[in-house]
Amino acid sequence: MVAEKTKYILEESRMPTAWYNLAADLPVPPPPVLHPGTGQPVGPADLEPLFPMELILQEVATDRYVDIPAEIQAIYRMWRPTPLYRAHRLERALDTPARIFYKYEGVSPAGSHKPNTAVPQAWYNKQAGVKRLTTETGAGQWGSALSIACAFFGIELKVYMVKVSYFQKPYRRALMETFGATCVPSPSPDTNAGRAILAADPESNGSLGIAISEAVEDAALRDDTKYSLGSVLNHVLMHQTIIGQEAQLQLEEADAWPDVIFGCVGGGSNFAGLTFPFIQQKLQGRDVRIVAAEPAACPTLTRGIYAYDFGDTSMMTPLVKMHTLGHTFVPAGIHAGGLRYHGMAPLVSLAKELNLIEAEAYPQTAVFDAAVRFARAEGILPAPESAHAIKGGIDEALRCKEAGEAKTILIGLSGHGNFDLGAYESYVAGNLVDYEHPQAEIERALAELPMR
Amino acid sequence: MVAEKTKYILEESRMPTAWYNLAADLPVPPPPVLHPGTGQPVGPADLEPLFPMELILQEVATDRYVDIPAEIQAIYRMWRPTPLYRAHRLERALDTPARIFYKYEGVSPAGSHKPNTAVPQAWYNKQAGVKRLTTETGAGQWGSALSIACAFFGIELKVYMVKVSYFQKPYRRALMETFGATCVPSPSPDTNAGRAILAADPESNGSLGIAISEAVEDAALRDDTKYSLGSVLNHVLMHQTIIGQEAQLQLEEADAWPDVIFGCVGGGSNFAGLTFPFIQQKLQGRDVRIVAAEPAACPTLTRGIYAYDFGDTSMMTPLVKMHTLGHTFVPAGIHAGGLRYHGMAPLVSLAKELNLIEAEAYPQTAVFDAAVRFARAEGILPAPESAHAIKGGIDEALRCKEAGEAKTILIGLSGHGNFDLGAYESYVAGNLVDYEHPQAEIERALAELPMR
Repeated sequence: MVAEKTKYILEESRMPTAWYNLAADLPVPPPPVLHPGTGQPVGPADLEPLFPMELILQEVATDRYVDIPAEIQAIYRMWRPTPLYRAHRLERALDTPARIFYKYEGVSPAGSHKPNTAVPQAWYNKQAGVKRLTTETGAGQWGSALSIACAFFGIELKVYMVKVSYFQKPYRRALMETFGATCVPSPSPDTNAGRAILAADPESNGSLGIAISEAVEDAALRDDTKYSLGSVLNHVLMHQTIIGQEAQLQLEEADAWPDVIFGCVGGGSNFAGLTFPFIQQKLQGRDVRIVAAEPAACPTLTRGIYAYDFGDTSMMTPLVKMHTLGHTFVPAGIHAGGLRYHGMAPLVSLAKELNLIEAEAYPQTAVFDAAVRFARAEGILPAPESAHAIKGGIDEALRCKEAGEAKTILIGLSGHGNFDLGAYESYVAGNLVDYEHPQAEIERALAELPMR
Repeated sequence: MVAEKTKYILEESRMPTAWYNLAADLPVPPPPVLHPGTGQPVGPADLEPLFPMELILQEVATDRYVDIPAEIQAIYRMWRPTPLYRAHRLERALDTPARIFYKYEGVSPAGSHKPNTAVPQAWYNKQAGVKRLTTETGAGQWGSALSIACAFFGIELKVYMVKVSYFQKPYRRALMETFGATCVPSPSPDTNAGRAILAADPESNGSLGIAISEAVEDAALRDDTKYSLGSVLNHVLMHQTIIGQEAQLQLEEADAWPDVIFGCVGGGSNFAGLTFPFIQQKLQGRDVRIVAAEPAACPTLTRGIYAYDFGDTSMMTPLVKMHTLGHTFVPAGIHAGGLRYHGMAPLVSLAKELNLIEAEAYPQTAVFDAAVRFARAEGILPAPESAHAIKGGIDEALRCKEAGEAKTILIGLSGHGNFDLGAYESYVAGNLVDYEHPQAEIERALAELPMR
C-alpha cells in the first residue's frame, strides 16, 4: 500500500503575513454605505463611537494587502496554518473519480473560523486603549470566539445573547463565562432598548436584531467601550482571507488547482475568507467556479434582491447595498443558526452581481444526510453551517462519477459540530423538517425595503 | 518581534510506524494474569471468545516493537502526527523561566487519545471476520471513539452506556448514533446480567461494572461478536505509545528534552502512551522524572495497594496484579469521569513498583483552576481528565519560578473539554466540591481483595 498524503499542513513560517482586500481588485468600486437618517454616505467619523479608527480605516481601505501585525500572527500560529485535507476516504465512499480537498477551520480555539477576526478585532481595540467590548450572539459561535480573544488581551467583554438561546444552550454560555466574559439574556434590563422591549413584552424570547440594538447602545453610551461584529463588514471579511491564501499554498504543495469551490454563506465572512483570494486569481483569468451554498430556509442569494437595506431588524444600522430578503424577514428555525441572516455581506453580494460567484440553496435534511456521510468517512463531525458546503461538494463529486470527470473540488469546512449535537440528535431521531418560505412571504418582506 | 515557533507538527512521512512494547524492556516480567475461578494463569485460548487472536498475541507479546499495519497508518494520518505545542503564552502568564510543552491529542476525531486504540482494535477484528463489537461506556468518551472506528470499517457496534449517563448526556449518545452505533442504557433487558439487575431493582442507575458484564456476556454468547476495551490491557496501552514516540521526535526538533513529564491516569492508557517511550530512555540511563497525576477522589496510585484484583466490580474478569483501591470501591462523583476507576493498568502499576514513575493526587477545584488558567492563556479548553496533568505542570512551573530554574516540562493534554461544558458550568457557578475518601473507607474496600 502506497502512503497517500492526507494532510497539507504548511509550515508556520509560510503562513501568510497580510490580509487580502478584494475591494482593490473588483472592476467597480463598492457602493457607498448610507446614513439611515440622511441617506447620505457615512464617513469614518460616523463610525467612531462604535469602532477603533484602525478598523474603520480597514473598512474603507482600497489597498490590496494589509499587513497582519506580528502579535496577531503569533496568536494565529496557535492554530494556524489550518490543515487542508485530501478526502481519500470520502472519495472512495462516493466511488468518484473527483479529487476532493477540504480546508478545515475547526482546529481553532472556538472550533470555527470566527477567531480569525475576533483576535485582530480585540487586538486593534486593545491598541486603541479600549477596556471593554460588547457584542451580540445568537447560537453562541461568535460570542465564544470573541470571549477567547478578549481573554488573550485582558479586555472585558459583555455578550448580549438572544434569550431563547441563553436558556436552551447553557453550555455555550458556560464556555463564554469560562473565558471570563459576562453573558446576559437579551432583551435585558441593562439598556434602554432592552427595557423598552421588556416593558412591552416581559416574556420576549429576544432576537438577533434586539441583541444588536442592546450591544450597540451599550458601546455608544460608554467612553471605555466599543462594539464588535462577527461578519458582514469589509474588515471582518478581510481578516478571514488568510483561509483562502493558505489553501492556495497548500493546493500548490498538492500540485492541484480547484475546478470548483464550495463555501457556506450566512453573513458571508467564512465564504469570503476562503474564496476571495481565488476570485483574485479568477479576475486575472484563471478558471475556477465558485459556489455559495446557502440554506433553502434563508435563500438570500438565490431568492433575495440586490438593494439597499438595514443590517439589523430594528433599523438602527447604516444602509448597505447587498442581497437581502428584507430586514423584516424571519428565516425558519433551522439548525444552521449561523446562516439565518436576512442579508449578505456587501462584498459577497457585489461579487455575485458581477457573476464572479454562483449560489445554490439546499434543504436541511439533505444537508444533514451529506454531513453524516462525510463524518462516517472522514471522522470529523461538521458544523451544520459547514455541511451546506459539503452537500454542494458531494453533489458535484457524484456528477463527476456520472460523467466520468476527474474534477478537483475544494470544500470550505468552516467548523466542527461538537457544539451542535442537539441538531444531530434531531437528525438521528428523524425529527428534522425542511422549510421553504412561500414567494408571497418573501415579497411581503421585500416590500418593506427602505429605498424601494 | 521574533517569530517564536509555537507548534511542532512533524511531517506525515515521519510518523512512527511501530508501537512500542514496554514489557520487552522492563527488568522483571509482568506477573501473570490469573483465572478468577482456578487462580491459575490464563492462556490465549481463555480469551478467544472475547478478542481476536492478533490482539491476544499483542497482549502477551514480548517483542519490543509491533509494526502498525499500513491501513491503520493511513487512518492515523487523518489526525496524526498530533501537534506538540510550546506554551509561550502560559509561560508568560505564569512568569516562569520554565519551558512548557504539551502534546495535544484533542485533534483526533473523538477529541481524545482514544481513537489511537479504537482504530486498530476495530481493524484487527475486521481482519478476523468479526461483524459486530460490543463495549461499555461511562461518560461516553470510549464509546464515541469506538463508534467512529467501527464506522470506518463497517462493523456493527452495540454500546452499553451506564444508564445515569445515557439520560444525563443525550449529546454523547447522539454522537455515537450519528456514527451508526446502537446505544442502550445499562442495565438493559437485552442480557441475562441486565435482566437480573432490573428484576432486583427496576430503577437501577447502572454502573461501569454492570455495563462491562452486559457487553462481555453479549460478546461471549454470539459467534459473530467480540468485545472491546478502551484502557488497562497491555495491547491497549501499546497502541497509545505512538503519542510518546511522536513527542520525542518533536522535542528533538525543538532541541529539547523534558526534565519532568506529567500525564493524567485513570485506567492508564493515555499516561502509558505518552510516557512509556520515555521510560525506555530512562531505563537506558537518560534522566527524566515522570509523574502520574490522579484525582484525590480516586487515588489509586497514591493510596491503593499493589495486589491481585478484579478489573470489574462484578468479579467476572480475570485477576490482574495492579494498584487498586479494591473492586468494591466507589470513587466520588467527580467531573473527570474518565479517571474514576478503582484499578490501574498492570504495566503502569509495575512501572510504579519499580520506581520508574511517581504519582501525585489533586483535588478537583484546584484542577479546574489550573484548567481555566491554561484555557485563558492557550485558548484550548482541556478535558477535566487532562487538566490533572496541567495542574501538575503549572505547579512545577511555579516551583521553577520560585527557584529560578529553567526546567523543561512536558504535559500530556489527552483531550479537549468541548463535551465537558457541564463541568465547566458547575465550576463557573461555584458549585464544584472536593472529596477525599476517609482511610477507613479505603481499608474496607481493600479488605475485600480476593487473594488477601
